[in-house]
Amino acid sequence: MATADQIRQALESVLEEGKVRYDQDSLDTYGKDWTKIYAPKPLAIVFPKTTEQVQSIVKLANEHHFALVPSGGRTGLSAGAVAANGEVVVSFDYMNAILNFNASDRTVRCQAGLITQQLQAFAEENGLYYPVDFASAGSSQIGGNLSTNAGGIKVIKYGMSRDWVLGMQVVTGAGEILELNRDLLKNNTGYDLRHLFVGAEGTLGFITEASMQLTRQPSNLTVLVLGLSDISNTMDVLKSFQSQLDLSAYEFFSHEAMGHVLAHNDVAAPFETSAPYYALLEFEATSEDLMDKAMEVFETCVEQGWVVDGVISQSETQAKNLWRLREGISESIAPRTPYKNDISVVVSKVPGFLSEINAVVTQHYPDFEIIWFGHIGDGNLHLNILKPENMENETFFSRCVDVNKWVFDIVEKYNGSISAEHGVGLVKKDYLHYTRSKEEISLMKGIKAAFDPNNIMNPGKIFD
Amino acid sequence: MATADQIRQALESVLEEGKVRYDQDSLDTYGKDWTKIYAPKPLAIVFPKTTEQVQSIVKLANEHHFALVPSGGRTGLSAGAVAANGEVVVSFDYMNAILNFNASDRTVRCQAGLITQQLQAFAEENGLYYPVDFASAGSSQIGGNLSTNAGGIKVIKYGMSRDWVLGMQVVTGAGEILELNRDLLKNNTGYDLRHLFVGAEGTLGFITEASMQLTRQPSNLTVLVLGLSDISNTMDVLKSFQSQLDLSAYEFFSHEAMGHVLAHNDVAAPFETSAPYYALLEFEATSEDLMDKAMEVFETCVEQGWVVDGVISQSETQAKNLWRLREGISESIAPRTPYKNDISVVVSKVPGFLSEINAVVTQHYPDFEIIWFGHIGDGNLHLNILKPENMENETFFSRCVDVNKWVFDIVEKYNGSISAEHGVGLVKKDYLHYTRSKEEISLMKGIKAAFDPNNIMNPGKIFD
Repeated sequence: MATADQIRQALESVLEEGKVRYDQDSLDTYGKDWTKIYAPKPLAIVFPKTTEQVQSIVKLANEHHFALVPSGGRTGLSAGAVAANGEVVVSFDYMNAILNFNASDRTVRCQAGLITQQLQAFAEENGLYYPVDFASAGSSQIGGNLSTNAGGIKVIKYGMSRDWVLGMQVVTGAGEILELNRDLLKNNTGYDLRHLFVGAEGTLGFITEASMQLTRQPSNLTVLVLGLSDISNTMDVLKSFQSQLDLSAYEFFSHEAMGHVLAHNDVAAPFETSAPYYALLEFEATSEDLMDKAMEVFETCVEQGWVVDGVISQSETQAKNLWRLREGISESIAPRTPYKNDISVVVSKVPGFLSEINAVVTQHYPDFEIIWFGHIGDGNLHLNILKPENMENETFFSRCVDVNKWVFDIVEKYNGSISAEHGVGLVKKDYLHYTRSKEEISLMKGIKAAFDPNNIMNPGKIFD
Repeated sequence: MATADQIRQALESVLEEGKVRYDQDSLDTYGKDWTKIYAPKPLAIVFPKTTEQVQSIVKLANEHHFALVPSGGRTGLSAGAVAANGEVVVSFDYMNAILNFNASDRTVRCQAGLITQQLQAFAEENGLYYPVDFASAGSSQIGGNLSTNAGGIKVIKYGMSRDWVLGMQVVTGAGEILELNRDLLKNNTGYDLRHLFVGAEGTLGFITEASMQLTRQPSNLTVLVLGLSDISNTMDVLKSFQSQLDLSAYEFFSHEAMGHVLAHNDVAAPFETSAPYYALLEFEATSEDLMDKAMEVFETCVEQGWVVDGVISQSETQAKNLWRLREGISESIAPRTPYKNDISVVVSKVPGFLSEINAVVTQHYPDFEIIWFGHIGDGNLHLNILKPENMENETFFSRCVDVNKWVFDIVEKYNGSISAEHGVGLVKKDYLHYTRSKEEISLMKGIKAAFDPNNIMNPGKIFD
């Protein structure tokens, strides 16, 4: 076992000057992500600029037996990028170049550290569109998005990050550089290792480059906000619209969630009628015909008693303002120290699932305020529990861990997921068995051993 | 090592009466797929009816050390389902039930033996659509489609089989039953093992059940056939149409290919003007606006000199007839004993790639007739070499193997795939290194060892 000094010295020998840091500020900043549960305690932060440098770092780690934590935009909510045990953090902040753009293929080759919003902006400058979008797009990096299979607000039409990566360069835990899938749309030549790295949270190796698919820009995006008479109607409404239109979003939020947004932001209520839940739909109104269809479905939903009121955007500005009702929720509840769960079930089971969790939490924790919102069109609910103002943080978090047991029992009963899009990391590791069988977890460990025989890659994340 | 009789006896003990066959006819039929290169030589054919029976078969294979070959519709073109070495063939012909349908989620749960066309028909009966489609849909089974990640004629819009499976039940080579992904749209809880089984060609275990996603039916599908002045223009034409329309197909075929179709089928030429290559495009003409856009792009393409003539379908019947120009090719050249290669490159590289292969094959094999067609919109070309009429089969195939070296060198140079959608099986195994590195192949073997420690699952397929 090498000493800390020996490891730092070895790292300095393979990196540029100033690209190995161990000042306290760097350790604190780069040792954690958006979760605030674990105290960061990395050995050093390194900033490679090339794939070859990443490979050298991996080889040193194997030689000197130290652990590596991949670090992107550090916007994760499951502590997948936390270094709490003396690991070396490998930041991709200096590997953020766009390497190639092919207008004909609509593909961008980039280094893993490219920020999501920069990819979106680059696409737009070139008359194209990168559709994976979410609140942290201004900080999150493509490598991190792929390692956590980031989703967001347009999954119902465009899928997850997994669906937009054509090729990948990775450095495995054994220090081998692999070029995966050659950016091909069709390539049936054995196991698709690219799909293994997507969502692996850096436990198999580092993603160093990626080829991302862009697509045509949507046109005349139009937003409806509907007041739902009851949560049980959300699926009927979804089904009715989906039978006529290709929706690009189907989001929902509770009356309480909207209350926080209205109190916190300079944004108006969509209409006067009050409803327990609201749905936000988006589609491309590319013809009057489609607009007519949307209005027809809306009227049917009102006649059926599923929808109590609604509004449709007549301009881009109006559409953006309606989106703020949904997108402003996280920010508006942030001061209340929310405890977040990110759970999913098969879409048709959402109403029963949500009601059952609601009932249990309300009964056992009457002093907790619950805020529901999420991507209901793909079965993904964000359950936020707000801290009572006079409760200590520690007491609150410990009581939320008690709530988890109730919630995850219901997730298991409904055959759902304990983490729809936030990943497992350290935060959800102890709950993994609610969604994955012990045989699956054992096979995952077998796969990890093949890619990372000395267990240097983000050890202790996802599973022990 | 158990004797053949002991193995057959053991199999009879776990299967229903009559569901273990070793008559010569069954051995010949179920011991091979559509490839005619290998002589079938299975030990027995078994027909399980339940997942538990499949599990029992796997346990016996581990205990008695015999090999298993999964067998679906046997329409494969790479000998992935061939049993040439005394293996036991496990046929899914009696596991073909639709187990569940959820109209709201648009999902079908089925056993692995369900025939593709039956899934398509079931979707249609329920006002929905299963979009993965190809020539062998009348025989191929869902389990086989997933094991080979079947693609086909609508990939440009709808993707491959991989993109339509929400959940899977599998029996691993170790005899464990896994329920993968719980049919969830979003589930980020560690490695997605479902994506490992897709395209694994039965080397990791058996797919026994699958949950397939259906979608809304396309409306007013409209087909254009265009005569291209030169292969180099195909990408400009594709790009122009894609900037305005969501294409559901972009196929191509050579003048020679169309010649065979016209001579063989009762179908008319699309127009009088002759062209070296033709493109077939399909889109949903859901509004007059879109129809106008298509006509505008067509006119631009003519003005640019890319397109020499064209026709657009005015009815469903006309659309179907235009499709016959493309879909009739395989059948029309079948009497000429075609040697098929299924290769792909990044889409923008298609013209150079095709020209280079054309030049080499024409120069070195002037007596061979080459027929090009394929899914050019996703970079996938089918290269068919027709046997000269006076040449013996054996001589022909042996010379085609010589051609392979030339072709695959160009595939490698263009960073392409030796098998875009047909898989590897036995036929492409020796060429795998042209597309996958030795490190990747070694990792694939490591993964296989985790799922199938005794190497009983389809040994010798993909890699040795």
